[in-house]
Amino acid sequence: MPHLRSAFFISDRTGITAELLGNTLLTQFDTVEFKRETVPFIDTPEKAEELAARIQQVADQDALRPLVFTSIINPDVRRALKIHNAQIVDFFETFIGELEQELGQRASLTVGRVHGMLNEERYDHRMAAVNFSLNHDDGVKLKDLDEADVILVGVSRSGKTPTCLYLALQYGIKAANYPLTPEDLDSPTLPKMLLPYRHKLFGLTIDPARLHYIRSERRPDSKYASVDNCRVEVNEAEAMFRHHGLAFISTTHKSVEEIATTIMHKAMLTRRF
Amino acid sequence: MPHLRSAFFISDRTGITAELLGNTLLTQFDTVEFKRETVPFIDTPEKAEELAARIQQVADQDALRPLVFTSIINPDVRRALKIHNAQIVDFFETFIGELEQELGQRASLTVGRVHGMLNEERYDHRMAAVNFSLNHDDGVKLKDLDEADVILVGVSRSGKTPTCLYLALQYGIKAANYPLTPEDLDSPTLPKMLLPYRHKLFGLTIDPARLHYIRSERRPDSKYASVDNCRVEVNEAEAMFRHHGLAFISTTHKSVEEIATTIMHKAMLTRRF
Repeated sequence: MPHLRSAFFISDRTGITAELLGNTLLTQFDTVEFKRETVPFIDTPEKAEELAARIQQVADQDALRPLVFTSIINPDVRRALKIHNAQIVDFFETFIGELEQELGQRASLTVGRVHGMLNEERYDHRMAAVNFSLNHDDGVKLKDLDEADVILVGVSRSGKTPTCLYLALQYGIKAANYPLTPEDLDSPTLPKMLLPYRHKLFGLTIDPARLHYIRSERRPDSKYASVDNCRVEVNEAEAMFRHHGLAFISTTHKSVEEIATTIMHKAMLTRRF
Repeated sequence: MPHLRSAFFISDRTGITAELLGNTLLTQFDTVEFKRETVPFIDTPEKAEELAARIQQVADQDALRPLVFTSIINPDVRRALKIHNAQIVDFFETFIGELEQELGQRASLTVGRVHGMLNEERYDHRMAAVNFSLNHDDGVKLKDLDEADVILVGVSRSGKTPTCLYLALQYGIKAANYPLTPEDLDSPTLPKMLLPYRHKLFGLTIDPARLHYIRSERRPDSKYASVDNCRVEVNEAEAMFRHHGLAFISTTHKSVEEIATTIMHKAMLTRRF
């Protein structure tokens, strides 16, 4: 393994920021293989020193400088993370100075700002949105459609459920989920109960071959999963979207993040917390 | 509004990276109020120029330099995003050079690396984990416990469901959800069906007053939601965790991200995609 490089993502909180930023950079080097490790909750100088010693060891063993991505806020902790012989990418330290200058203020240097009541309100909001998604994942009631921020419409297994959940968890968006049944698809007019909510509808479509694959995992050799049936359903669904001028996207080559962000953007939704 | 500052998070993909980095930095300035806008999918020089012109206008109106956080990969697009009179924090440009040097390679400068089949595999993995969570959110079967990567145990409304979903969506972890019923809590021994899975159990607890609040939203003035009952249930659950030496955390002041990351860390779980 000529190219195995250790990469550490270090944070005094969850490590999500360090990990995401680090990985965003690392995906640009696709011929290098990385040994990744996320180390969250490094929030005291002691923990930082201990970790530094461990990374130092890794560096010696690897005989290749590890990459260390950090987003540690507390300067004492940051200082204690002294590693010779490593490439350190410090997100916080790199940018905070210029922002202090621009805003004419010192950073408050508080770890885990989103705390106490504010955090609880956020939590309640997300819970409400998650519960909303869960409560009518199968079968939609008019009341739900009324309350929804957005209504995802698509054939079975086109990606509605994970997208709804992601929208709820990440953005606090109440996303309802309307599965187009074969009966709905018989005509290009919208199912009756959706008509009053046209402005909230967003279509999901999917490549028929991919749909066939996904459905076959569930019900192999069924009519439901057959290539022909998948092709017909997808065509009819897209015809319906076009007929009503609904925005829709294909989920085929997209991650849940991309699908959800695209919907937020195109439906002009904003984060609810 | 003496301190209203425009902040833009700009990306050629979802904007999640730019947004996360920007917000991580901005939370350090808690007396400044920001007008935030995320602008994803800026992936051509034309879109970048158009956006630059719009931000320029905002800058002129605000009479305060906007903050612009970008993570645009394509250098042509980046160059086209020329804004005078703004504070630009260019995440990608800042770090990619030193990484190229360290790794002895040029960045591939490819937008949306995680593509095609790899992306589909990730998607399938997440779907499987999400479906796993959804399928037994109420009522657990032995087969589920067997298949689970981790089993969250806690009283009703202690935060198990959103945590399971987050673990599934973000990490592809199959998290089962075992709600401790009043009958389970009568004795500090583990419910029988959990005994063979002790090594996979992780406890969630919550402040009784907070639990009372959450449960009251669902069933006001019920025994279920009463402060006394909440206190008893939480005490008994914690006694059970201690009795069996189970790791557990309080969800009270934590975001879903923090709860999930803590579990990943303490249960030594690793991302499944």
